[in-house]
Amino acid sequence: MSLAFAQTETDTRSRIMETAERLFREIGYQKTTVADIARTLKMSPANVYRFFDSKKAINEAVAERLMRHVEATIAGIAAGPGTAEARLREMILVMHRMNEGLYTSDQRMHEMVETAMNESWQVVEGHIHRKCAIFEGVVREGIGTGEFAPGDPHTVSHCVQLCMMRYFHPLLLVQCGGTPGPSIEELTDFVMRAVKTPA
Amino acid sequence: MSLAFAQTETDTRSRIMETAERLFREIGYQKTTVADIARTLKMSPANVYRFFDSKKAINEAVAERLMRHVEATIAGIAAGPGTAEARLREMILVMHRMNEGLYTSDQRMHEMVETAMNESWQVVEGHIHRKCAIFEGVVREGIGTGEFAPGDPHTVSHCVQLCMMRYFHPLLLVQCGGTPGPSIEELTDFVMRAVKTPA
Repeated sequence: MSLAFAQTETDTRSRIMETAERLFREIGYQKTTVADIARTLKMSPANVYRFFDSKKAINEAVAERLMRHVEATIAGIAAGPGTAEARLREMILVMHRMNEGLYTSDQRMHEMVETAMNESWQVVEGHIHRKCAIFEGVVREGIGTGEFAPGDPHTVSHCVQLCMMRYFHPLLLVQCGGTPGPSIEELTDFVMRAVKTPA
Repeated sequence: MSLAFAQTETDTRSRIMETAERLFREIGYQKTTVADIARTLKMSPANVYRFFDSKKAINEAVAERLMRHVEATIAGIAAGPGTAEARLREMILVMHRMNEGLYTSDQRMHEMVETAMNESWQVVEGHIHRKCAIFEGVVREGIGTGEFAPGDPHTVSHCVQLCMMRYFHPLLLVQCGGTPGPSIEELTDFVMRAVKTPA
């Protein structure tokens, strides 16, 4: 396979994903068919099926790309300047805002994400695994420099994320949205006290 | 209305709820009809409808009774002996175990609870409100005696419950069940550090 040909294949794959994402946003995941995606791209459904063997596979690729974008943003903050605490707080806030944008502001995207959560859990699992590793890195650093209390970075970073679930988890963002309770800043302050206090 | 008659009315109401709960457990919420409940009780469906105007109303009464049982157990621990920390830890553990028993051990009860969560949110909301008040009381006491760090009891107790959500919330108990992560004891240790550390 020549390099130029491989490039075209990658482009076509990307174009299918972009078009699918746009149609999922515009008309909803359930209502979008592979035929709609093909028609919009002026190609045959058979050609779409050369790249993705089902609509589910397209959804998985779209969902994974959205999640990888969140991870890249979080990883950028983790690798940036500032104390471990400042970066962790920023990661929490950005994670929340991006998830909220994906799952609650846009009802049609929520439908797509919910489908991925129900039908393609391994995609969500991969995302959880990668974002956990990024959180763990910053916690490990903070423990290493003595900024955070001594502890197992894996357990501590996991605890932080479980504590913030109400502001991260798609279903909770919808279910808890509008109910009274601590703000994300108040909850983060509370959690940071646990991170900085020795057992 | 005579006292004896009122007593009989209350008894009949209780018997309908008990029978409904048993049928929900045995054959599932969706499959149980008001006619099934009436037949089991050897009464007419019309008589059941004198007490509850729909199956939904029966489900709400059954769900509320189960939730009030959880609340009474938690309130018993809150009012019992021991430090505020010891009681709070026990309340967390018992809350978790009772919810797990209701929602994950018994698939048919989960169906009933899920229906209540989707169709009768005000019942769930009442439960959340009452259990929050019990948690807040113990946190207020701990702050008052200096056992816990100074803070607003309402916010602190709310933070504790949000942090423990993974071990309390019906949907998360199912979704996170079997995934690796901190145990309820590890998470509680983490949260107690936040409760005891001044801002």
